[in-house]
Amino acid sequence: MKKNVLIVGAGGVAQVVAHKCAQNNDVLGDIHIASRTKAKCDAIIASVHEKKAMKQEGVLEAHALDALDIEATKALIEKTGSQIVINVGTAFLNMSVLRACMDTGVAYIDTAIHEDPNKICETPPWYGNYEWKRADECKEKGITAILGAGFDPGVVNAYARLARDEYLDKVTDVDIVDINAGSHGKYFATNFDPEINFREFTGVVYSWQGGEWNVNKMFEIGKDYDLPVVGTRRAYLCGHDEVHSLAKNMDGADVRFWMGFGDHYINVFTVLKNIGLLSEQPVKLADGTEVVPLKVVKACLPDPSSLAPEYQGKTCIGDFVKGIKDGKEREVFIYNVADHKEAYNEVGSQGISYTAGVPPVAAAMLVASGEWDVKQMANVEELPPKPFLSVLAKIGLSTWIRENGQERPLFE
Amino acid sequence: MKKNVLIVGAGGVAQVVAHKCAQNNDVLGDIHIASRTKAKCDAIIASVHEKKAMKQEGVLEAHALDALDIEATKALIEKTGSQIVINVGTAFLNMSVLRACMDTGVAYIDTAIHEDPNKICETPPWYGNYEWKRADECKEKGITAILGAGFDPGVVNAYARLARDEYLDKVTDVDIVDINAGSHGKYFATNFDPEINFREFTGVVYSWQGGEWNVNKMFEIGKDYDLPVVGTRRAYLCGHDEVHSLAKNMDGADVRFWMGFGDHYINVFTVLKNIGLLSEQPVKLADGTEVVPLKVVKACLPDPSSLAPEYQGKTCIGDFVKGIKDGKEREVFIYNVADHKEAYNEVGSQGISYTAGVPPVAAAMLVASGEWDVKQMANVEELPPKPFLSVLAKIGLSTWIRENGQERPLFE
Repeated sequence: MKKNVLIVGAGGVAQVVAHKCAQNNDVLGDIHIASRTKAKCDAIIASVHEKKAMKQEGVLEAHALDALDIEATKALIEKTGSQIVINVGTAFLNMSVLRACMDTGVAYIDTAIHEDPNKICETPPWYGNYEWKRADECKEKGITAILGAGFDPGVVNAYARLARDEYLDKVTDVDIVDINAGSHGKYFATNFDPEINFREFTGVVYSWQGGEWNVNKMFEIGKDYDLPVVGTRRAYLCGHDEVHSLAKNMDGADVRFWMGFGDHYINVFTVLKNIGLLSEQPVKLADGTEVVPLKVVKACLPDPSSLAPEYQGKTCIGDFVKGIKDGKEREVFIYNVADHKEAYNEVGSQGISYTAGVPPVAAAMLVASGEWDVKQMANVEELPPKPFLSVLAKIGLSTWIRENGQERPLFE
Repeated sequence: MKKNVLIVGAGGVAQVVAHKCAQNNDVLGDIHIASRTKAKCDAIIASVHEKKAMKQEGVLEAHALDALDIEATKALIEKTGSQIVINVGTAFLNMSVLRACMDTGVAYIDTAIHEDPNKICETPPWYGNYEWKRADECKEKGITAILGAGFDPGVVNAYARLARDEYLDKVTDVDIVDINAGSHGKYFATNFDPEINFREFTGVVYSWQGGEWNVNKMFEIGKDYDLPVVGTRRAYLCGHDEVHSLAKNMDGADVRFWMGFGDHYINVFTVLKNIGLLSEQPVKLADGTEVVPLKVVKACLPDPSSLAPEYQGKTCIGDFVKGIKDGKEREVFIYNVADHKEAYNEVGSQGISYTAGVPPVAAAMLVASGEWDVKQMANVEELPPKPFLSVLAKIGLSTWIRENGQERPLFE
């Protein structure tokens, strides 16, 4: 049954979500896009029409919305008859948008953990600090709320579940590796909102090892990974949303997240951090004005959405999952490779936004079809992975498996 | 004859000036310190008393003054009976303080070229843009105005003049080298106000070679100098105040200025500059506020005056002067070595402030004695160098000469 979709947010990921919803509006229904700045929604809609992305005639409308305003969000959900909300606004909005969905009885999908703008890198349990507190109420009310349904978190959670279901009797290690081997040609830029992007790396790094939370410093632990297509790349142990939910849902396996960084990125990041320019705490200027340094850095850096036209190269994101099968050690690498240029040509966004924006649309399609309309709150690894990976393969992100040096697609 | 002194400014250099005036208040007279923030003047006065720096009983008073306000400055000069103004406030104040001195008929001494806060690295002639336009009026009115009487510009100008007077028949090259081999123990800091400090390096680099202005990029031309005490250090061609006046006053010799930078300084500077954080042009934040990035960087960096207690190591600043003597090539290196810790112990400031703050006091003492009371505007190389270097040797900065690997003090 077709279900109307409300997209919250109008950044690079929202652009991909809108294109993908449009390309699949035979499965989904009316499409609405809402953001504080309606002009950004209008620009996305123009881009959808320019690419002739609407599969069939249908509604595609822009709305001005402050999604921190729960009553306004509820009113828009009701006015538009939306049955699924895809929240790809800033991570500060999650709890208010989720509340609006719970109060109006519609499905909620997001791609990142909730963040308090005044806190950086909270201690685990991250989901437990916010989203999971609403799990019981979702179940009582029969609300489908799918958390972290982007690529990472999201698809990588499904990869871990797939490995456990099909390739291993017991999982001992999940190492998620995220490599962007693309180049945007700028001196320095972040692929998402710098305010969110840097927050991932300014605190300590949590990993789940030996049944407990391990703490490291950022860039303390690096490792060279030899990967399909992108070759050997250095990645560093980082904290990331999915580590927490997988720590709970993978039967005690170690869970680590590794992100690739070049020396140049690390150098720039280190300089900015050490000087205090990544701080979200205001500093006082000579004239007495108070300014948050991170907001000034953001204003100086290129707008992430401006990077897409020149972005070249590929991303490789996947899970090394290790464990025991039939009494023997086994390791598989389940992954996707995406291309920045292809993403731009198709939907006008770079590959990082593409990999983050396609999965929540696949999740929405599964909610519409009923397969993932589970009437409760769930992280992606708690849902059947194959339907999700199957839809993803059809709408733009194919899954591959490498084992013993051999690579094969999940779906032949 | 004793002359009362008004010190404008209350930063690290002003602190040194106050201490040195106090130590020589038998030659100078009453000492007044004025700054926008009177509390900073009070702190300097407390420091002078703490070190028991007053040579004999006398006046030492703090005043609140906005030195951009010419009438207020004139009133303070008259109220305090000051006959010499030592301007060591920001470089933005020169022209208004000079005007106040010209209108009240008192001597003016500064240590750096005037700057317009809205312009970075103006094209030469720098002094010609501002100060020298008042030269005729100073002469008519009999006003002594000594420009750039710090260390560099200042003492290095006297070194160049000394070489021309005593060691060479014809000067072909003046290479001024400024090495700070000290360490403040911080991740990154500037030794002066970051707003002024960075401005020296964010534009193009001018040098005087072959009878014309040469243009290079910052850090484009580096050279290893083997120097007394501090050893071999890498220095880079920079623009600097004294290059312009020496270009005019050294009979056509090439004049270059070289400043030592470590790789870490260059790296941090390069990152900040490339991202746009050293810009004095406002950027617009997401909420619409306009902020000057450089002012935010300044707020994040350590206050230069806070560096003094931990500063260790030495500075070496001097002139390689090359030319012809008795038909043969000759080169001398005339220099001073200063020690950060000794400076701190004596006057509570680090060595960079010390080398900048002692010379204008020597100049003031020569104005008081009449030797430099020239009743016109002059750059330091236009004045007899030996009395200046002689006073400097007595009050804390001795001059040395290295030639053919042999080092000797100027005054045995």
